[in-house]
Amino acid sequence: MRRDIQISRESTNAVRSRSGNGVARDLETLLNFLRIRGASTRPLVARETGFSRAVVAQRLGDLQSTGLVVDSGRDASSGGRPPQKIQFNADRGHVLVADLGATSIDVAVADLDGRIVAHVSEDADISAGPEIILSHVEQLFDNVRAVSGQAGGVPWGIGVGLPGPVEFNTGRPVAPPIMPGWDAYPVRERLTNRLCVPVWVDNDVNVMALGERAEGSARGVDDFIFVKIGTGIGAGIVSHGTIQRGVQGSAGDVGHIQVVSDPDIICRCGNVGCLEAVAGGAALGRSALRAAEQRASVTLAEMRAQRGTLSARDVAEAARHGDPVSVQLLQQAGRHIGQMLATAVNLMNPSLIVIGGGVAGAGDVLMASIREVVYGRSLPLATRHLQIRHSTIGDRAGIAGVAAMVIDELFAPERVSSWIENGSPVGRPEPAFY
Amino acid sequence: MRRDIQISRESTNAVRSRSGNGVARDLETLLNFLRIRGASTRPLVARETGFSRAVVAQRLGDLQSTGLVVDSGRDASSGGRPPQKIQFNADRGHVLVADLGATSIDVAVADLDGRIVAHVSEDADISAGPEIILSHVEQLFDNVRAVSGQAGGVPWGIGVGLPGPVEFNTGRPVAPPIMPGWDAYPVRERLTNRLCVPVWVDNDVNVMALGERAEGSARGVDDFIFVKIGTGIGAGIVSHGTIQRGVQGSAGDVGHIQVVSDPDIICRCGNVGCLEAVAGGAALGRSALRAAEQRASVTLAEMRAQRGTLSARDVAEAARHGDPVSVQLLQQAGRHIGQMLATAVNLMNPSLIVIGGGVAGAGDVLMASIREVVYGRSLPLATRHLQIRHSTIGDRAGIAGVAAMVIDELFAPERVSSWIENGSPVGRPEPAFY
Repeated sequence: MRRDIQISRESTNAVRSRSGNGVARDLETLLNFLRIRGASTRPLVARETGFSRAVVAQRLGDLQSTGLVVDSGRDASSGGRPPQKIQFNADRGHVLVADLGATSIDVAVADLDGRIVAHVSEDADISAGPEIILSHVEQLFDNVRAVSGQAGGVPWGIGVGLPGPVEFNTGRPVAPPIMPGWDAYPVRERLTNRLCVPVWVDNDVNVMALGERAEGSARGVDDFIFVKIGTGIGAGIVSHGTIQRGVQGSAGDVGHIQVVSDPDIICRCGNVGCLEAVAGGAALGRSALRAAEQRASVTLAEMRAQRGTLSARDVAEAARHGDPVSVQLLQQAGRHIGQMLATAVNLMNPSLIVIGGGVAGAGDVLMASIREVVYGRSLPLATRHLQIRHSTIGDRAGIAGVAAMVIDELFAPERVSSWIENGSPVGRPEPAFY
Repeated sequence: MRRDIQISRESTNAVRSRSGNGVARDLETLLNFLRIRGASTRPLVARETGFSRAVVAQRLGDLQSTGLVVDSGRDASSGGRPPQKIQFNADRGHVLVADLGATSIDVAVADLDGRIVAHVSEDADISAGPEIILSHVEQLFDNVRAVSGQAGGVPWGIGVGLPGPVEFNTGRPVAPPIMPGWDAYPVRERLTNRLCVPVWVDNDVNVMALGERAEGSARGVDDFIFVKIGTGIGAGIVSHGTIQRGVQGSAGDVGHIQVVSDPDIICRCGNVGCLEAVAGGAALGRSALRAAEQRASVTLAEMRAQRGTLSARDVAEAARHGDPVSVQLLQQAGRHIGQMLATAVNLMNPSLIVIGGGVAGAGDVLMASIREVVYGRSLPLATRHLQIRHSTIGDRAGIAGVAAMVIDELFAPERVSSWIENGSPVGRPEPAFY
């Protein structure tokens, strides 16, 4: 992230040197104002941005000539002849987004507001390796652009979410546990070089956090923690409206925080007592199997006899039917997750925690235990206004979040200043260094 | 913090509306460039900021006429007649800073680079309450300004560090455990109203983190965690070069994170197993007393007989003399602190941890245990380049950090844009809303 910004500042400066004035910066201010605030009148733009009306008229004219800003009817609210309104033109370009899961590929076209306009979804096994999977993604990009009527246009950017740790600067997976063959594969470089557009790659949890902020349970919230409880456990941390990736991009990797000291609980990472090893979906499934084998739970034993195996989903179902062992398993998992979150709350003092991922749908038992520990173990000042909510958009968070990531990057002030005088980032010479 | 920025944006906009152009913003860019980069030639300024040479010449002229920028000799490095260099004038104004401890008041005058130019230190008991202590601080402000030769000038801002939780937006302590009478006292408002200058108040740990960044072990580091191990334990979190205060300002309050589940370890906060209750200086002193009473350690028993009581300092001394019980106590404390930090590293992926505070001076045993756990329990990606260092400036971090806080706030881009056309923030109508 740091290096990235450094580079983009250099290109910004290069453009400024050429233009020799602050026009690009003024255009960026006005464009992002309209993009974030929505349709507006010229007097309102002048008042809120602090530019004179003459400057606003001139610069909005420039933006209109590039197609980035368009007329949008009249404001009916004031007396006399209502003033003309203008708005950001989200249809001026499009971006391509892909959200890769362990067994699925979601690919979509989004407009410049990050709204999904076409979406295809397919089964695919990530362990087939990067060559096969990314070729398939490229194929799906073509398909979905055809569906959306964008086959002719050049996308402004591409975003990819991957189910494992990613070094954001380089766009390469780092020792991803469920992605054999992907370690250090240059995902960003490959797509950049093949498609000649800027590409950003991040892990699935960070993009889900961005998706929750764009259109889910964290809409409009600047400081929150998103926790995905699936087979494993991960977190996306948003602070001052920005995803916190940390220095190497591993921030939020909470699955391997130690929560119990029992030397018998060995995690797949090799350490003992990791959160994932006691509260992840895989761990819940294992505990349920054990309870079924030992006939501690008749319900689970019957489910196992029917289904051959047991997953976290089965534990949730059994808990809903009142199976005390399953209720206890979910309570234990919730308390361990709550313990990690209480620490995170004391460290970071967010205003919201959003719980998502497959196991999060397990119902109220898990959520109640998480709440109990977080509110009981965090500082009163830190929990005074703290909310803990379920994800409301579930699986959609991924693809919406990848779109939000690309839009955030494309419209970051320094980056806008470097392309705005061309009217779009398309066709710039060095997308790789973008 | 959020509300603060909101307000400052509004005042920025008010100024921009009056000036009707981006001049204030250009002046801000140039001023902060020189302030951060040091003395520079005009061609270099033009190249690095992207402004044309004509704009640079004109705007630097404006800044010189306000006294914020001054000539600084010639650049000898290039051939021919060396170009004139210019620099930020840190003597153009001064700020007043106070760092309050449990039993001490440090007060200083700093220049606009945050360098301390005069400093007085006195014993004082914070539990005397805010009226008595702040009157005394105001008196010391007069004294130190007289010493520094600044008695005539109006300070540009005031900063205060307090030994307890502070809500940064309002500048009020929130249920501070060792500050009876201070809860919710309007420290910021009082000083603002009496001295008619902008005031910022924060807790001692956050300001120490800023001090380490300004001139200590975290110099130039953008993403780090500072941990103060004193009577209690607290952390200051810096991310992207900015202190992370969280939504209510309680971020970094790590002393009450649960690290053991032993129901017998009851913390003064009422919870069980808090970090502070097992690894803080007070806890170390208590454990040492117990070891002396039970004659588990002859060294500690002898020290106790001589001194009447035992503190963390005594444990450190006994450990240096090879007392095995004291070594063990420090190892245990270090492991618990390391456990909290391993979690923090997994959550935030910083590049540096700085250990400071009175107990941090206990020597290598404590540090070795902290390192052992952090490197053993954090993700390999997160510790690949992670460093763990002692504070090198110790107590000086507090006063240097308060100065850095005030300078950071005064020169925040939005705030500079609101005062730069006056040449200084002095005499603005509403310092309270600053």
